[in-house]
Amino acid sequence: MEKNRLEAFSDGVLAIIITIMVLELKVPHSVENPHLAGLADLKDLLPVFFSYVLSFIYVGIYWNNHHHMFHSTRYVTGGILWATLHLLFWLSLFPFTTAWVGANHLAPTPVAVYGCVLLMAAIAYFILQHAIIRQQGPNSLLARAIGADWKGKLSPLCYLAAIPLAFHSVWISDGLFVFVAILWLVPDRRIERLLAKREKP
Amino acid sequence: MEKNRLEAFSDGVLAIIITIMVLELKVPHSVENPHLAGLADLKDLLPVFFSYVLSFIYVGIYWNNHHHMFHSTRYVTGGILWATLHLLFWLSLFPFTTAWVGANHLAPTPVAVYGCVLLMAAIAYFILQHAIIRQQGPNSLLARAIGADWKGKLSPLCYLAAIPLAFHSVWISDGLFVFVAILWLVPDRRIERLLAKREKP
Amino acid sequence: MEKNRLEAFSDGVLAIIITIMVLELKVPHSVENPHLAGLADLKDLLPVFFSYVLSFIYVGIYWNNHHHMFHSTRYVTGGILWATLHLLFWLSLFPFTTAWVGANHLAPTPVAVYGCVLLMAAIAYFILQHAIIRQQGPNSLLARAIGADWKGKLSPLCYLAAIPLAFHSVWISDGLFVFVAILWLVPDRRIERLLAKREKP
Amino acid sequence: MEKNRLEAFSDGVLAIIITIMVLELKVPHSVENPHLAGLADLKDLLPVFFSYVLSFIYVGIYWNNHHHMFHSTRYVTGGILWATLHLLFWLSLFPFTTAWVGANHLAPTPVAVYGCVLLMAAIAYFILQHAIIRQQGPNSLLARAIGADWKGKLSPLCYLAAIPLAFHSVWISDGLFVFVAILWLVPDRRIERLLAKREKP
Repeated sequence: MEKNRLEAFSDGVLAIIITIMVLELKVPHSVENPHLAGLADLKDLLPVFFSYVLSFIYVGIYWNNHHHMFHSTRYVTGGILWATLHLLFWLSLFPFTTAWVGANHLAPTPVAVYGCVLLMAAIAYFILQHAIIRQQGPNSLLARAIGADWKGKLSPLCYLAAIPLAFHSVWISDGLFVFVAILWLVPDRRIERLLAKREKP
Repeated sequence: MEKNRLEAFSDGVLAIIITIMVLELKVPHSVENPHLAGLADLKDLLPVFFSYVLSFIYVGIYWNNHHHMFHSTRYVTGGILWATLHLLFWLSLFPFTTAWVGANHLAPTPVAVYGCVLLMAAIAYFILQHAIIRQQGPNSLLARAIGADWKGKLSPLCYLAAIPLAFHSVWISDGLFVFVAILWLVPDRRIERLLAKREKP
Repeated sequence: MEKNRLEAFSDGVLAIIITIMVLELKVPHSVENPHLAGLADLKDLLPVFFSYVLSFIYVGIYWNNHHHMFHSTRYVTGGILWATLHLLFWLSLFPFTTAWVGANHLAPTPVAVYGCVLLMAAIAYFILQHAIIRQQGPNSLLARAIGADWKGKLSPLCYLAAIPLAFHSVWISDGLFVFVAILWLVPDRRIERLLAKREKP
Repeated sequence: MEKNRLEAFSDGVLAIIITIMVLELKVPHSVENPHLAGLADLKDLLPVFFSYVLSFIYVGIYWNNHHHMFHSTRYVTGGILWATLHLLFWLSLFPFTTAWVGANHLAPTPVAVYGCVLLMAAIAYFILQHAIIRQQGPNSLLARAIGADWKGKLSPLCYLAAIPLAFHSVWISDGLFVFVAILWLVPDRRIERLLAKREKP
């Protein structure tokens, strides 16, 4: 039951994060003539829209992974609870960095800061994963499920590279962010398969 | 349990979408004399109010249908999860399109964009429905429940017609949006009846 | 289970309504010197604060009553679902009316509109109550619990009186709103008592 | 079940409070040249960021303690319900005070008001704790778990001291707020230990 409440709270926070990001899509107000509101107004919103799409996918991936991770967890300790809050803290900065990148999509600093927050969230996820594995003891279901965890190791390296590269070309950094998102979107059935195995012995 | 968490997350996102739309009802500040705040200020808000009412009903319909759809579902696969997030993505744009239509209710572009988002949400719903039916296998409860699904097929056609028609007359498009909403508001007992049948064999 | 999901959705919407109202407490920015931010800035916020407190209590009362009402309900029909959404719609206007009254607390129109929304919410609650009683059949637990329902009948009358009286004196209307809130805050153990009776026969 | 719904509602409100605070991290818009958005813009946000971090931790602590407190509770009375809403009310003011301190971090009044809201929340928590203990009767699990409750008694004293001290030096008050947060972050296994004991007799 404890676990359920932590899941519910995380779901609530993630649901709010994913939704308030859309508030940055400010309604364009055509100054001269409201009847002329048109596609030109929308075009200005395109960078904000694309950064919204990317961040939406990232939050979706985190929700999905968090979901799988807790599926293999039974009890929640104080350490796991604070590790979850730590992860939620960095995810809660997504609306800010998303909006900043959207408003200044060619400036290197916002893109680098976006990468920093992604990096911190990845580190927080890593800490949470290890807090759960430590609590589950050796032969932990989660430990076996993630295996070598190459995705979990490659992603922070990509973010780490994207931060200085933003000052060279923001497009390289953007490309790295999209690459990592696609990496995780490709279904990862490791945990699902292991759970399935265990259930039909 | 997996299903419950997806339902809870969807409920959270839908609850936030339906509620933050009201933030677009900006409090009018009478510049000259605050004691004169009056009905004239409210009149300016009428278009925003009506677009809020319409979008509230649409989100309510989606929540209702989503609710019924998942009632007939047991397990959630990765595909169903991402199909749900895809639907939530398009629904999350409702606050933006609602506010834009409200602020420029006679301009064709916002009305056409409103129709586009409705169309994309309908397509996302269709994809989700098929992901669930595919998972349930032949003789799927949901497949039998929706039957010919004429509502699900007529709605996107109406949205598709409303998009170009907005440039002719926004009132025709608005009429189509209201028509589809009424279509779904009329109670649809298909799934309820089938579930009832199954429970008392 | 159906009932649980409607409760969860309502809880989500009510939690958001009660929380976003606080966004109207805009942070005062001392234009001249930020080091002089002081109590004078807070004084300007007092009307907004008081309207926030009142609306917070109203949403709390609705949540509490909704909670009790659904406690005596087992199944949720389409009618009950839409009656709940109808109630949530009027409650979702609270942040707007609260902010408008707060910004123009001496102007009669905002106070009258505040009363209108309270009245509509009370009517929506009444409709929901009857939808549940109708579904529960004669000898409904809820029907016996509410009895003559004098509070439920007196409240809309007070709101109805407060609307025109606001144009006479906003203080009378404000007084009526506070009076009704106190009426409901005084613990109402009708349903609790009946449930207790039933459980220990 | 009643208890579950109160937990769910509290979780919803706390999830929203913890998340909407981030909306105060306003995206800086470089007026002259959007390509020059840089670290200088971020530096201006540092005070807002630090007050956000502190408030995030405070809400996390309240959520955590609320969680433990209700773990040892079975039934929810009207008194407990309103004591919870009272606590949520004061916590709902966190986004406002956090933003005000962030915007005027050297001004004494916002810091003192921040302390007042912390004090009121601590008092509300104390009232809630006693409402639960009263309902549980003598030998209450919660009463034994909290014991002398020196943390619960020291915290309001620190807030009380921080309020007038802010007019002397805001840094002393800030230090007290950070001190209390650290006090609670250090894991408090009192309730956990007692529950563990009871479960394995």
